[in-house]
Amino acid sequence: MRATVMYGAGDVHVETVPDARVVEATDAVVAVTRAAICGSDLWPYKSMDPSETGRRMGHEFIGVLEHVGADVRTMKAGDLVISPFVWSDGTCVFCQEGLQPSCLHGGRYGDDGVDGGQGEAVRVPQADGTLVVLPVGRDDALMPSLLTLSDVMATGHHAALAANVGPGKTVAVVGDGAVGLCAVIAARRLGAERIIILGRHPDRIALAKDFGATDVISERGDDAVERVRELADGLGAHSVLECVGLEQSTVTALSVARPGGAVGRVGVPQAESIPEGVTTFFDNVTIAGGPAPARAYIEELLPDVFEGRIEPGRVFDRVTNLDGVPDGYRAMNDREAIKVMIDF
Amino acid sequence: MRATVMYGAGDVHVETVPDARVVEATDAVVAVTRAAICGSDLWPYKSMDPSETGRRMGHEFIGVLEHVGADVRTMKAGDLVISPFVWSDGTCVFCQEGLQPSCLHGGRYGDDGVDGGQGEAVRVPQADGTLVVLPVGRDDALMPSLLTLSDVMATGHHAALAANVGPGKTVAVVGDGAVGLCAVIAARRLGAERIIILGRHPDRIALAKDFGATDVISERGDDAVERVRELADGLGAHSVLECVGLEQSTVTALSVARPGGAVGRVGVPQAESIPEGVTTFFDNVTIAGGPAPARAYIEELLPDVFEGRIEPGRVFDRVTNLDGVPDGYRAMNDREAIKVMIDF
Repeated sequence: MRATVMYGAGDVHVETVPDARVVEATDAVVAVTRAAICGSDLWPYKSMDPSETGRRMGHEFIGVLEHVGADVRTMKAGDLVISPFVWSDGTCVFCQEGLQPSCLHGGRYGDDGVDGGQGEAVRVPQADGTLVVLPVGRDDALMPSLLTLSDVMATGHHAALAANVGPGKTVAVVGDGAVGLCAVIAARRLGAERIIILGRHPDRIALAKDFGATDVISERGDDAVERVRELADGLGAHSVLECVGLEQSTVTALSVARPGGAVGRVGVPQAESIPEGVTTFFDNVTIAGGPAPARAYIEELLPDVFEGRIEPGRVFDRVTNLDGVPDGYRAMNDREAIKVMIDF
Repeated sequence: MRATVMYGAGDVHVETVPDARVVEATDAVVAVTRAAICGSDLWPYKSMDPSETGRRMGHEFIGVLEHVGADVRTMKAGDLVISPFVWSDGTCVFCQEGLQPSCLHGGRYGDDGVDGGQGEAVRVPQADGTLVVLPVGRDDALMPSLLTLSDVMATGHHAALAANVGPGKTVAVVGDGAVGLCAVIAARRLGAERIIILGRHPDRIALAKDFGATDVISERGDDAVERVRELADGLGAHSVLECVGLEQSTVTALSVARPGGAVGRVGVPQAESIPEGVTTFFDNVTIAGGPAPARAYIEELLPDVFEGRIEPGRVFDRVTNLDGVPDGYRAMNDREAIKVMIDF
């Protein structure tokens, strides 16, 4: 089969790899119908050290079950399924608490002999715990929005929950990438009164406004902080959704929070410490977030997608086939595309 | 009147200062009957640059109202009152939310012409918003425990709330100072199942056990982390109460938290960033806390003190008069004393 392999920064290839197959009795093999390139895939794309063996890429996908292991109980060959961006057993203490990224027996796609999602097929360990069967056909018009539930929309939702978004709140979203845009959707869905997005790309800002952003701030650094405070009664935002992960964006996020407010971090951190600024502790600002439990959120958000209340699939502004994946990375890295969907 | 002034690291004097007096119509003057030395007073005691004018010290006190300004409505001369460690107006948006340390019109004792608490009298701004009248006599046997509500017990309680302590939870308390000991009281009060204290001073550990600590860990650093994990099902603590504020204690606190757990920080941070460790973000560990809203907690905790359910006053293991304050600083800094009460 063919799949995406990264050999170093900027060095992405689609090539022949061993066919995905059932190894454990709890595995399933999914023939991928849709996949995506993630903002987090761009970190190794910018910085990965050269590797001879390469790294299998991708962790967002929908597909058709081709084979299931003998112990898989809740799904069968032919089912259309969506996977969250990590696999998990569904039974450990953390899965039971809805924190599947910390599953005691789970793991990541592309590691330890598990395929990546940007390929023709994927061996999914712990299929019963990981996958969710979708009650639609593989080419349903909702497919882009459904695909976002595997990661980007779940991640935006996680930022909003971690930052305690709720009715009447003023929310600041730091970052206008696909996660930031989904965070806007999530904030609106949870009843935020004011949603301020910090970003400067006209196409993304236009989409953010469609999704419910009430205010746009294109400044950066101290100027951005000052502008958010002006818009937020001079006090700062109740909820700040950090959707980038860089040191500067984190400083900005912490600096625009209101005393007693919360910062939900979902951008994968690129620094080894959280710059405290002068105010985080003294303002009782809570810092929360991490990898989203997409497995839990898929079930929570599916009705909103099916009933048309949210349209996160609009973050995909480019579609490619598998051969176009390397150029998809380039386009996202150059900010030509917000997010790329792979149609098999 | 006489009061405590610090002129630099290790340089504490009791000397004559201008008498406290009503300046604004919302002020009150309190004749101090009991005060305390705070762990946070030890930071300048260790590091303050020499100052010619000096710094007025102290922010925990109980006393009798001597004079009230014309606009003070809810208390009168002769009332016994307790002050939280900051003053606040009681009416701004943050006071209404119970976050009085962020009061828009509040401030700190010892700053801007406001007296410190370690002196014979204190001008208290915004008396109606700040002070709480105590329905007991000035020499009531509960006075030590009542005094702790001005800061140290409120701060331990804040750590516990910030870390989401609750029934059935495993709690780790980092630090065996007076705040850590009060954090043990708070964790037990909130129903924690297991309370692990990290500390190594026999007198403090004995008190921690009396207060409800179920396990003691005297190791530090990586060994301490490993021991907490062992005691906490191999997973880490649901709630971690950081009661020190140093970089190493913060690393330890973040490292012993369970995935999905929370760290409540109340030790005044002595570093400019939060060392993330490898796991904070990836484990969805929440970092919360800051200065405690003691004004709110005094009302919440008073019944527990009056009805004998908590005895935080036991953290005072030394009593002095005002002249003994400089030696009280020395004793706390040398860890001869856990916490010093000043009896006027």
